[in-house]
Amino acid sequence: MRHLLSTRELDRDQAIELLDIAEEMAAVQEREVKKLPTLRGKTVVNLFFEDSTRTRISFEAAAKRLSADVINFSAKGSSVSKGESLKDTAQTLQAMGADGVVIRHPASGAPHTLATSGWIDAGVINAGDGTHEHPTQALLDAFTMRRRLHGGASRGRALDGVRVVIVGDVLHSRVARSNVWLLATLGAEVELVAPPTLVPVDTSSWPARVGYDLDAALRGTPDVVMMLRIQAERMHAAFFPNTREYARTWGLDDARFDALPPGTMVMHPGPMNRGLEIAARAADSQQSTVREQVANGVSVRMAALYMLLSGERGEA
Amino acid sequence: MRHLLSTRELDRDQAIELLDIAEEMAAVQEREVKKLPTLRGKTVVNLFFEDSTRTRISFEAAAKRLSADVINFSAKGSSVSKGESLKDTAQTLQAMGADGVVIRHPASGAPHTLATSGWIDAGVINAGDGTHEHPTQALLDAFTMRRRLHGGASRGRALDGVRVVIVGDVLHSRVARSNVWLLATLGAEVELVAPPTLVPVDTSSWPARVGYDLDAALRGTPDVVMMLRIQAERMHAAFFPNTREYARTWGLDDARFDALPPGTMVMHPGPMNRGLEIAARAADSQQSTVREQVANGVSVRMAALYMLLSGERGEA
Amino acid sequence: MRHLLSTRELDRDQAIELLDIAEEMAAVQEREVKKLPTLRGKTVVNLFFEDSTRTRISFEAAAKRLSADVINFSAKGSSVSKGESLKDTAQTLQAMGADGVVIRHPASGAPHTLATSGWIDAGVINAGDGTHEHPTQALLDAFTMRRRLHGGASRGRALDGVRVVIVGDVLHSRVARSNVWLLATLGAEVELVAPPTLVPVDTSSWPARVGYDLDAALRGTPDVVMMLRIQAERMHAAFFPNTREYARTWGLDDARFDALPPGTMVMHPGPMNRGLEIAARAADSQQSTVREQVANGVSVRMAALYMLLSGERGEA
Repeated sequence: MRHLLSTRELDRDQAIELLDIAEEMAAVQEREVKKLPTLRGKTVVNLFFEDSTRTRISFEAAAKRLSADVINFSAKGSSVSKGESLKDTAQTLQAMGADGVVIRHPASGAPHTLATSGWIDAGVINAGDGTHEHPTQALLDAFTMRRRLHGGASRGRALDGVRVVIVGDVLHSRVARSNVWLLATLGAEVELVAPPTLVPVDTSSWPARVGYDLDAALRGTPDVVMMLRIQAERMHAAFFPNTREYARTWGLDDARFDALPPGTMVMHPGPMNRGLEIAARAADSQQSTVREQVANGVSVRMAALYMLLSGERGEA
Repeated sequence: MRHLLSTRELDRDQAIELLDIAEEMAAVQEREVKKLPTLRGKTVVNLFFEDSTRTRISFEAAAKRLSADVINFSAKGSSVSKGESLKDTAQTLQAMGADGVVIRHPASGAPHTLATSGWIDAGVINAGDGTHEHPTQALLDAFTMRRRLHGGASRGRALDGVRVVIVGDVLHSRVARSNVWLLATLGAEVELVAPPTLVPVDTSSWPARVGYDLDAALRGTPDVVMMLRIQAERMHAAFFPNTREYARTWGLDDARFDALPPGTMVMHPGPMNRGLEIAARAADSQQSTVREQVANGVSVRMAALYMLLSGERGEA
Repeated sequence: MRHLLSTRELDRDQAIELLDIAEEMAAVQEREVKKLPTLRGKTVVNLFFEDSTRTRISFEAAAKRLSADVINFSAKGSSVSKGESLKDTAQTLQAMGADGVVIRHPASGAPHTLATSGWIDAGVINAGDGTHEHPTQALLDAFTMRRRLHGGASRGRALDGVRVVIVGDVLHSRVARSNVWLLATLGAEVELVAPPTLVPVDTSSWPARVGYDLDAALRGTPDVVMMLRIQAERMHAAFFPNTREYARTWGLDDARFDALPPGTMVMHPGPMNRGLEIAARAADSQQSTVREQVANGVSVRMAALYMLLSGERGEA
């Protein structure tokens, strides 16, 4: 694998291989010295055109645990913010010998452009681009589901037949998009549930069903309920005057949570708006995987950096 | 020791042990390769909710010299600034495998909450919380006094009978609070001297005397005069119209400095307002320990990180 | 060499030695593990009083590839921005045990003050000070010229007889100043071409000719054409109403580029304003060295850090 730009492009074997390597990385983090020498001498640049402290530090921790040198490049205050083109930035990173570039960008497609325009030899990881994709988020979600379902017997497995309901602002969510493609590739069945104004127009081609009734979806006893983060301005775009109204219609509130079978996983990419899209009780329950998702994020990102930057890459 | 939250909680043996370990760390910094492998594979997060470049880089240097991986997490521009709770931030750091968290926070008590709410296994070091405490500052101050008084024979010693006058805005100073508790534990005698409006109301329970006459206090020939940093708005709260007036009443000006016995230590936590709370001549004199304080800060922080994060911790 | 403050102070042997060491460093970067243990245990502080992401990450990559610990100290939001003096900042870095300080400062001469006032033992590298100098930029430019001219046989060589035309806002350019002195020391012949309002008044003492006709200068078939970056407000100071007018008179546009002999090097310190001081075709041509300049920047900065901070320094 040369780049990790989207889950749509991943085939089933690649996805399972990455999840299996992430299992090895999770084991490293159980050890006394949580570090591998694998990427010593490699330089990973975190190229962030949008603030995202959580994602940045997850990648930073992942790269450092593989002994890579990490350079943080925030576009704010840099020549990038003064109008430097992505091309010039890319060529600068290339010239400085970046081996990996983790890019977060407000424009959908920017990571793809960076990876495929020939400006750069580095492996490119999309850390979120516009409303397009956030592949490592979907991979850590899948990793989390697999571990909850199969524990120590996860290696080599997919998610065949697992039923996942994804709820909220699907229209603007790169997390939802990346999950839809990856989950379908891994054999899961996905239902999207959203306010009608927050559903993309193009979902006919997506490997997922679309519904508009959260209670109906939950009555189908899914294995996983994944709540998306809602932003205030988008809540209003969905014609909800306040958080209470939104929470009542689209939130995983106490009543809905209590009605779920005890084995249902409750997922959220974080940071959560407690009391809005998810009630505190659901968020902090045994069924919630929120903290595992964060922990698994480091393992999955170590796996992605390993696949892109270790010796095997040269042969690709 | 699991956390370092305040000096009030330190007992005499713990305080002396930490100062003794700091002596070892100071020796490391005399060596050609100023580095120990002790914390290799550990991750230290600098979680700063307030800007403080000096404190952050002191901890960063300390952690790196122990071979830890350091991740800087400034709350500005992060989801924290968008209202994420301390709990969610803590759980994120926990999930990412942080072994140590160095926290600077505008709210008194935030480090205590972080350490004791069960959100996190990491060792927590308070790097300054509101007007509460700044324990590593007091420890580096005590370390500096001990070294000046006893040089190479410092190990194992306390500060019994050492007379310390602390001058300035005691009301808002976490440095003063941490010093009062630690110095008393180590046997020193502390006098606080401050404008009446800048003395806390609760000092009756403090192990320190309170005075309002700087000249009288200095006539008592203290061993140490510690000047606190004053901020302009607080100078005005003390009813001083300008810096000249303030300096004349509460500053260590040339006349006061010249009247001190030559062995009196002059301390300041930095950064100094030369000409306001301290005259340039005092600041740059042989009696001034300002630079030693900064240097000792790295040693003391190495000692704190070592005590919290090295193998011994598991047994605590 | 104790400091690298300006190219004006470098003698020919020192300059050639630094370029030769940079050749070794370039070779390191060709290796599988692009890292040397040379500066392990050393601390390099990037002390940036102006934003410059490119320069900062180039120095950061250089220091990390020599295994130094790197601490980034941006003056924004620090006590420095609250009026702390350069002296206090310097003494803080000294006390923390900084071995090298890379300083970018808006005031011409600040690095010299830092290095020579006795505040600090660290080696100081000027990473750009006001309109004064930017020595590592000139060194990487010379390195780039030498490599293009002599390839693998560069070691030990100077630039005798090489004809260089430097074009643009010479008045405000520290890059131009550093190049003029270094190129003269290395035996090159330099011609400065600029709008009359953007030529310094004191060039009579410079080892360079000054011209006002770009086309005439290019007809002299120089070996190197170095285009400086123009900033909009300075374009107006040169009495050009818009970028098209400026580009027509002072830009390396397509017509001028096409008229150059095929061996002429086209240099630019970056980031480029394509279509303003340099046409896209020139910028992206085989003759353009822009990317090599960035790559060579890391090698040259490794060499500078090595010369200042490795064991040899103690003897200086």
